[in-house]
Amino acid sequence: MDRMSRSERIGVMTKILLDQPNQIYTLNFFSELFGVAKSTVSDDIVLLRRALDTFDLGTLETVVGAAGGVKYIPRPGRNRISEFILMLCDKLSDPHRILPGGFLYMTDLLFMPHIAERVGEIMAYKFNDAQPDFVITVETKGIPIALMTGKALNCPVVIARRDSKVTEGSVVTINYVSASSKRIQTMSLARRAVRQGQRALIVDDFMKGGGTAKGMIDLLGEFGVDIAGVGVMIATQQPEEKMVENYVSLIELKQVDESGRKVILEPAAWILNG
Amino acid sequence: MDRMSRSERIGVMTKILLDQPNQIYTLNFFSELFGVAKSTVSDDIVLLRRALDTFDLGTLETVVGAAGGVKYIPRPGRNRISEFILMLCDKLSDPHRILPGGFLYMTDLLFMPHIAERVGEIMAYKFNDAQPDFVITVETKGIPIALMTGKALNCPVVIARRDSKVTEGSVVTINYVSASSKRIQTMSLARRAVRQGQRALIVDDFMKGGGTAKGMIDLLGEFGVDIAGVGVMIATQQPEEKMVENYVSLIELKQVDESGRKVILEPAAWILNG
Repeated sequence: MDRMSRSERIGVMTKILLDQPNQIYTLNFFSELFGVAKSTVSDDIVLLRRALDTFDLGTLETVVGAAGGVKYIPRPGRNRISEFILMLCDKLSDPHRILPGGFLYMTDLLFMPHIAERVGEIMAYKFNDAQPDFVITVETKGIPIALMTGKALNCPVVIARRDSKVTEGSVVTINYVSASSKRIQTMSLARRAVRQGQRALIVDDFMKGGGTAKGMIDLLGEFGVDIAGVGVMIATQQPEEKMVENYVSLIELKQVDESGRKVILEPAAWILNG
Repeated sequence: MDRMSRSERIGVMTKILLDQPNQIYTLNFFSELFGVAKSTVSDDIVLLRRALDTFDLGTLETVVGAAGGVKYIPRPGRNRISEFILMLCDKLSDPHRILPGGFLYMTDLLFMPHIAERVGEIMAYKFNDAQPDFVITVETKGIPIALMTGKALNCPVVIARRDSKVTEGSVVTINYVSASSKRIQTMSLARRAVRQGQRALIVDDFMKGGGTAKGMIDLLGEFGVDIAGVGVMIATQQPEEKMVENYVSLIELKQVDESGRKVILEPAAWILNG
């Protein structure tokens, strides 16, 4: 093929780097792919980094050393995060979402791929420095945002199941108490899914009392896995005391007023205050 | 800000277009974003399209008319697809994956975000012309590939639940018979999740007898939803007669020999023959 122009190289480079965030690509890789000198690739990277930075679209990080190269880190800018979360709050506050019992219907939003992806990028941004080895959630509604968090961090996703399944092989099962319903629930994790000494990032869509997150922490404790962090998309304002101490939420649910047909949510304080 | 160079514009354009495949962006949008003429944006698009085509990384489609603009379509090249599927077959044929009862452990691969994303892109490529309004799967293991198929097609994902949940509102529930186990199973779909006259793409990770897919078709029939297609990552060779007639699989599972510690899989014929 003819030698490509810088613009064409940058288009292809963007596609490759952004497809797998946090994956290191060597300068050699691009140098051979395009048939140009490594110094040319370096110049391309500088240009692309500047362009992404200008629009708050994440950044390129250069990694030095033998395993060195360049990787893309999704790092949504402050304004982008708060705009997105305000948009989500607006959608979630639609009174048609109120279900009998004061629950909030949100499955449709959680399973919109581009919404899940933005939430995952924000989670990854908050927990990037905690260096998790994997992301874990309990089935079912938390899976899309957990998957997209894993994508942004370039790490696998692990699922705790409500029942043990024959397709998971041998599992460890715990019983735990849901803080809100006070009912005993069950959660299983395949023995081959994780290894001792790994670090887990717990991600879920919703936290009320924190019983489910506490259950995941206890279950991971059985495997000798450390907790890198707990992130939830929505946490309720009440009860103020959760069963887990440290967690990050993106949205605070203040009230679902079933008879008054009113839902009140707000972005979490860190999102507004920076 | 200073006017950006063509290279910088193309980097940013790639990021924006690829973040949301099949989403149309007007030339005006880019023209205003970069402060350049629409003809300049057109030239950028031609360059980027050529670069992506050269490396089989998908394509840009120009849509004319009032709602016109440009959109990115993931269209993995033949070679890329067959290489990827052969790699998956190789990983899946590891005898350590054999579980008691002749089941195959594959949850870890299904929940690797970049693997799920490639599978989703292939599904989207196969069913792009069928123009589904949404992608549907039944919880749990099929969710990652369904989500990524939805991402590539730019359409929402809908989940049929094994049990009805209070957070889904009112649901329609059906009983169906699993072809392989002959057991009666249950599947529910939230009434607010889909609308009459929509077109559904059914996606799942695994098909043996096809009972689950048939269950989803019946459940969608209760809503007056049409079937745009059925896509599964792996279909077993036996039984040859499935309970659904038309489906696309990526991989054929020929044998899991528990005592001989052997797994035999092959890419589906259409992947090898093109």
